[in-house]
Order: sequence, then structure tokens, then C-alpha cells
Amino acid sequence: MDSKEFRQQGHEIIDWIADYLDHADRFPVMSGVKPGEIRDLIPPRAPEEGEPMDRIFRDFQEGILPGVTHWNHPRFFAYFPANNSGPSILGELLSAGLGVNAMLWQTSPAATELEEMMMVWLRDLVGLPGSFHGVIQDTASTATLCALLCARERATGFAANEHGLAEAGHLRIYCSSEAHSSVVKGAKIAGFGAAALVPVAVDAARAMDPGDLDRKITADLAAGLKPCCVVATVGTTSTTAIDPLSAVGPVARRHGLWLHVDAALAGTAAILPQMRWILEGAEHADSLVFNPHKWLFTNFDCSAFFVQDPEHLEHTLTINPDYLKTDRDDEVHNYRDWGIQLGRRFRALKLWFVLRRFGARKLREMVAAHIALAGEFAAWVGGDPDWELLAPVPLNTVCFRWNPRDRTLDPDALNAGNKALMDAVNAAGRIYLTHTVLDGRFTLRLAIGQTATRRVHVEEAWEELRAHVPRR
Amino acid sequence: MDSKEFRQQGHEIIDWIADYLDHADRFPVMSGVKPGEIRDLIPPRAPEEGEPMDRIFRDFQEGILPGVTHWNHPRFFAYFPANNSGPSILGELLSAGLGVNAMLWQTSPAATELEEMMMVWLRDLVGLPGSFHGVIQDTASTATLCALLCARERATGFAANEHGLAEAGHLRIYCSSEAHSSVVKGAKIAGFGAAALVPVAVDAARAMDPGDLDRKITADLAAGLKPCCVVATVGTTSTTAIDPLSAVGPVARRHGLWLHVDAALAGTAAILPQMRWILEGAEHADSLVFNPHKWLFTNFDCSAFFVQDPEHLEHTLTINPDYLKTDRDDEVHNYRDWGIQLGRRFRALKLWFVLRRFGARKLREMVAAHIALAGEFAAWVGGDPDWELLAPVPLNTVCFRWNPRDRTLDPDALNAGNKALMDAVNAAGRIYLTHTVLDGRFTLRLAIGQTATRRVHVEEAWEELRAHVPRR
Repeated sequence: MDSKEFRQQGHEIIDWIADYLDHADRFPVMSGVKPGEIRDLIPPRAPEEGEPMDRIFRDFQEGILPGVTHWNHPRFFAYFPANNSGPSILGELLSAGLGVNAMLWQTSPAATELEEMMMVWLRDLVGLPGSFHGVIQDTASTATLCALLCARERATGFAANEHGLAEAGHLRIYCSSEAHSSVVKGAKIAGFGAAALVPVAVDAARAMDPGDLDRKITADLAAGLKPCCVVATVGTTSTTAIDPLSAVGPVARRHGLWLHVDAALAGTAAILPQMRWILEGAEHADSLVFNPHKWLFTNFDCSAFFVQDPEHLEHTLTINPDYLKTDRDDEVHNYRDWGIQLGRRFRALKLWFVLRRFGARKLREMVAAHIALAGEFAAWVGGDPDWELLAPVPLNTVCFRWNPRDRTLDPDALNAGNKALMDAVNAAGRIYLTHTVLDGRFTLRLAIGQTATRRVHVEEAWEELRAHVPRR
Repeated sequence: MDSKEFRQQGHEIIDWIADYLDHADRFPVMSGVKPGEIRDLIPPRAPEEGEPMDRIFRDFQEGILPGVTHWNHPRFFAYFPANNSGPSILGELLSAGLGVNAMLWQTSPAATELEEMMMVWLRDLVGLPGSFHGVIQDTASTATLCALLCARERATGFAANEHGLAEAGHLRIYCSSEAHSSVVKGAKIAGFGAAALVPVAVDAARAMDPGDLDRKITADLAAGLKPCCVVATVGTTSTTAIDPLSAVGPVARRHGLWLHVDAALAGTAAILPQMRWILEGAEHADSLVFNPHKWLFTNFDCSAFFVQDPEHLEHTLTINPDYLKTDRDDEVHNYRDWGIQLGRRFRALKLWFVLRRFGARKLREMVAAHIALAGEFAAWVGGDPDWELLAPVPLNTVCFRWNPRDRTLDPDALNAGNKALMDAVNAAGRIYLTHTVLDGRFTLRLAIGQTATRRVHVEEAWEELRAHVPRR
């Protein structure tokens, strides 16, 4: 592909994306294809001879697009937002064009230093103390794994890194029963084992009970086990419950445990002065992660991981073969030692584009609008006798279900009815939402946060849900 | 940013990238900025109000670009290639525009199924047996970590995942002394500990000695240790040495160990019939990784990870909280269970663009040209009495040093001289190459593989090196 063709095809794809983002609402939100339907369209072997780009792009539009679930649709309310924006897409494009590997400072000093500064910008925007230093990782799963490794090495004086866990004793990790699945996955990967996870009780709002945390740690110490790490969640996946860092932090500190805060979704909300409280007590944390790729208008992946002691993180993850040594190693950050992977994309560029093009005021305005819409939707649900809210709504996510006003349906019928309702609205294609299970109750989740989502879309969701309630 | 502005700025950035890729050779290859120089240009806080995109893009060109080391420069010979191409950049752009998260089949069926098929295409292109199933990961570091976890769980019957390594005994990993640093990093992360790594002797070509592997495993068994995994390297980082899979494989098999093949760089070469031999014996492997983002004209990140038993991989890495369950889970692959991260980009798109736009024949032609150029350069070095080759050149990487013809310089002077030579040519900015250390000898490495690299650039590298030999 010469530069003439690149320009021409590039302009065409830019124009296509512009149209797509303007009119994503023309598509069914969730793809309706059957398993294998897309796979069957792809020839079994790579072509021997090159093909023209316009044919490939046409195949994309005709063959691939029907299999795409549209995360940027204004009526995408599933899982969590992964909101995107023009500046972010252009930053990603530019980063792909440069194609640098930001593994070492020397392999592109600007990639490292812009990343350092973007982490300063983000840190200050969400009100974290200046003692935090940040790095961009791909996902909160990876960041939480890094935190568990830091905790493991602090608890063992770096002996686990050297000699493994065979003689490290029984290390323990504490998180609420509502913590994300990445914590148990990280515990497995890092060699603690799933059984090392101690579920801490939650209160009525599904937030961690600091008293129970203290009791669990104390009991483990008495049993000769080795408490190692607390993972607090600010904005749980199911219901956006907020563990109280101001109370959890001192417990972790008193016992000398690493405190990691998983604020993957919710951290972004702390850019709002009125929501700053969700990170109150974060000064007690050793590490914290939140994902600009969820709610800060930055396309996936871009996860902001902060630590108070970067030297400990580097010591935990460092490798230093001859072929990676440079003369600058004592003067600079080599971000390869701040994460799992060696290779790293130049992800700071898209964040820089987003933060500058929008500006802090506009970002706050957009995030506040999402929270306000969730509050409105919750009020509609709460005000309708045929529906009920199943969790508080501190942020952008509403947990609720259909429960006809006479309240005569038994638990199984309610679960089946709400599952059928969800499947029906998703199949209809106008909205897409997903579920969780709370105390055995099948629970609908409406997560508001896509860039193009406006009040009218949330109204449509409410209409669509009410139009699809099961017949009785 | 409305769609009008997106179009306008998008076209501008596309045009800029087109110019950049045509004329990257106008820039010094390695950035010459000092530590802090870029950081100092960035304001300490995010702007409160949004800024116009053209100002941001101007700041990129004036402020950021001088801090970029140009991996796509035709005279970039450092580390390993990370070759890029127009179709790949456009695929990444389109993927950023869609902004889908390919964590589950349902969250974008096309992303999963196109990925499945691209892994079939790649598997067949490099001649792996049809029993291998693939997944795109970010880096070979992560893929190798997954392989170590699979090995760990096979050796412990999934007890490590559940109960950790505290009671798993002393698991052992075997790799040559030339293996990549990601193996020791993975051993630390997965809780084996660095000491679990058993270095296997290499032959004169720095390839693993299968006899020594057998002896080391046998000795460990006799000592009551638990052999678990062999990591063979096809194309080591320092010298592209090739461990003999046909001999290593049966040893691993006989002892019931997991065999992982790290072919991060070299795997791509197996698309050439004449290089297919490097993967001979791969049928003995349980897993194998190679990086299209190194040498297959696909921008970082895109790492192809293959396993023979995907159910074992899924079982090793699965998590299944209520909020991620879908009705299709029994019928489809949910790639979230094939790797460390939950969230996943739609990376198959760029690979599909690359494989179709170029076609297999053209890809083979370009890779073969790189290998031929490395052979030519090696011949120039070998034919000059003031230089010497320090390793065989089976692929694209030449290890060599300056050693004046009278051969009177002592080892320290040679090391210092070659280091000074490398620093001088890199500072001059016409070429960029890096080093390794072989048996205490400071060794220059010339890695050929960038998309725009032609014979003339390799000739220039040779001229540049000879022009900068230290004065005596």
C-alpha cells in the first residue's frame, strides 16, 4: 500500500467512522448473529495474492459489521460504559502510525514522559494525593494483578519472587464478596490460590464492613495464616457499591497490609467535586486503579494504575537483561518494570488528546449528566408499582427488576420473568442491557455512560422495558 | 468534537502519517532529547477549558515528535523489528472507531470469530499442525505467562489455582541460558520464583542442548523436585539461536512436561518454505507464541498464542461471575478465558487487513528480503579483517563487533571501543542499533526487518559503522 492509497483509504475510513458515530443508532445494539455465522463467511486460508483495499473494506461492512455489538450506540446500557470520542480515536490512530514501543525511556522518551505527565493530570483531576505515581496499563485486571504481586513481595521481603511460594506460608487476601472477578483470577495467577481470598461481609448497600475486615484479619493471624493484602472496591461491578476507604484504610494500615483500591469504573466520577467523597481515604492506599477507557471518553485500552511507592513496584517486576540496558537507566523511568508486559503502546497520546480537546470542565459536565440520568431512571423505576430498585444508585448504574404490583410472583417466576424480559428487549435490538444476580435475584442492570447517550435514549430504554414485560 | 471536525482532523492526521511513513528517514532515528526535556514542556495540570485540535496537533509535531524514537525509520536496526504497514494502521483505526470490547463472544461475535479465523490463517501460514488453536494476546510476555500457568495447573491437577503454591512442592522450569527475560519474569509472577528456573546448557550456536535438558530433569526428579515446564526458544533475543524442537520435544514429552515455544520474533520466518525447518518438531509443543507485531507488518500489539488443548487453557484461566454469563457460553469461545485480561480489543481486524491486502506471496517476499539483507551484511562483516561476527546468522539479526585486524586490543578495550562506537553512531542519528553481551563480549546487533528498509539502508549502516570506529 503506497502513501497515495493510504491517504485515499484512510480518508474513507475516517469518513465512515464519522458517519458511524453520528448514526450508530441505526444498528441493533446487540448483534443478532448466531454462533459460527461470521466464521463461516471467512475463507479457510489467507489469500495467496493481495486484494484491493476497497474490497476488504466492503467485506467489513457487509460481512463483519452485522456481527458487531455496538458499544458506542447511544442505547448501549450493558456491562459498563466504554465510551469513546473523536480525540481518542485520532490519538490512537496517530499512535498506530508512529508504531513506537514504549518499553524503555530510550525507545521513545516522549512516550514515557507524556505518560508520566498524563498520570499527574489524572491524579490531580480525581483528587489523589501528590504522593501517587502513575502508569498506563491495559486493564484493571492486570493492574490488580500487579498490586497483588507488590503485596506478596512486601509480605515476603521479595522472597516469593526469588524462591516462589512453596515456603512462603499461607498468604491471605481480603476483599468484599462483591469484588470483581479479577481479584480471584489474580490470586490464582500469582500463586496465592483462590482459597487465599477471604470474603469480607458487606452492609446493606453492599459496601465492605470494616469491622468484619478487622475480625477476619485478626482470626487469620490467630490461626497462623499470613494476612497480606486488602482489595477495596470503589464502585463494584454489580451495583457500584463503594467500600469506605476512610474506615478500611486504617484497618489495613494497622495490620501492615497492602491496600489496593479497584475503582475501575467509578474512579472517573471523582473528577466531580460532589463525587470526590468516593475516594476519601485513598491516602491510605498503596495502589489504586481506574479506567479512563470505561468512562473518560478514551477508547479501550487505557487503565490508570497509581502506586505510592514506585520503587517497590519496580523492584517487584524488574528484569534487566543486557540487551535492555541503556545509559539512562538511573535517570529515567523504564515503564517496562511497572507492569506485566515488556512491550508497551504509546497510549498517553490519546489521553492527552482527550484531556486537552475536552478540557476538565466539559469532562465533568458529561460525567455529571450520566449520573443525573441514572438518578432519573432510578426515580422512574422507584415510582412505578410494577418495578423495584434492588440497590442504591450512587453513580451511573441502576439495578432493578420487574415485579408486578400485586407482588404475588414467587422468586423463581420473578427470575424467569426478568430473564425473559431482558432477552426480549435485547433481541428487539433497540437497547442492550445485561444482568447480575443479587441474593439469588435475577437483576437487570442499566449502566449509563456512552458518549452519545442523552435523556431521550434513557426514556426509550424505560419505554422499551415496559413494552416487553412478560404476559401473565 | 463533532463529526465535521473529526473528518477534517482525521484527514489531516491520515495525511501526516502518509508523509511520515514516506519520509521517516528525515528524522534522526533515535531521539536525542535529554531526560525531562519533554516532560518540562507539558503543563502541570489538565486544561480547564477545551482546546482546538489543530493547536494540540501542532504541539504534537513541535513538542512531542522530537522525543520520539522512530521505530518505522528505514534505518532502525535496534532491538527487534516492529514493522508496520498502511493496512495495519487502518485496521487499528477502524477498531478504535468501533470501540468494541471483545471479552465475550456476545460482546461482539465478529471480533471473536474473525480472531478464530485469523489464527487459523496464521497457523497454516507458518505450518503449525491443525491441532493448534489460537488467540491474540498483547505480548509474548503475557502468552509465556499463560503457558507457565497452564504447565503449573497441569502439574498440580489444578490444585495450585485453588490452594496456591504453598503446598505444591518445588516446581521446576527449564529453558536455555539464552531464553528471554519474560520467562524469569513469568516464573516470578506465577509464584514459581526465579530459582525454579533451571538454565539448560547451549551448544556453540547458542541453541539448547537436549541432552543437558534430559540430564537436568532427571537430576531434579532424583532430588525430589517437580519438573513442570520446558520453554524452548526459536530465535533467541540476543542472537536468534534456534532451539531444536525435534530433539527437545521428545525429552519434554517423555517426562510429561508442558512444552512452550517462544518464537516471538522468528515465528514469522516460518511463512517461508525454506525456513519452515525452524518450527520442525512444533507438534510436540503444548503452546507456542509468535508476534505478528514484530515482523509481520502489523502494528503493536498483536501476539499470536497457540495451544493444543484450549480447554486446559480455559480451565486454567476461567472466571465466571454472574454478570458475565450469557446463554451462548456452551456454544462459543469466550476469549476472556484464554488470557490474563478480561477486556480485549478487536485486534483481528488489523491482521485481516494485513493478510488480505498483502497476500501470502508478498509477505513471504518481504520477509525473505530481510533475511537476505542480513546475510549480505554478515558477509560484509565477515569479509572485513577489522570486524568479526560473534554468532551465526540464521535469520534477520547480525551479532558482530569491531576488532581491528591486528587483534591486539584486550577484552576491556574491545568492549569499551564497541560501546563507544555504538553510542557514536546512535548519536549521529543516521542509524540506530543496540547491543547484547555474549560471553562477556559487548556485541553489536543489527536487526533488519522494518517495512521500509532496503539494501541501500543496510549499506548506509555499514558505512556509518565503519566511519565511526574509534581512533587508536
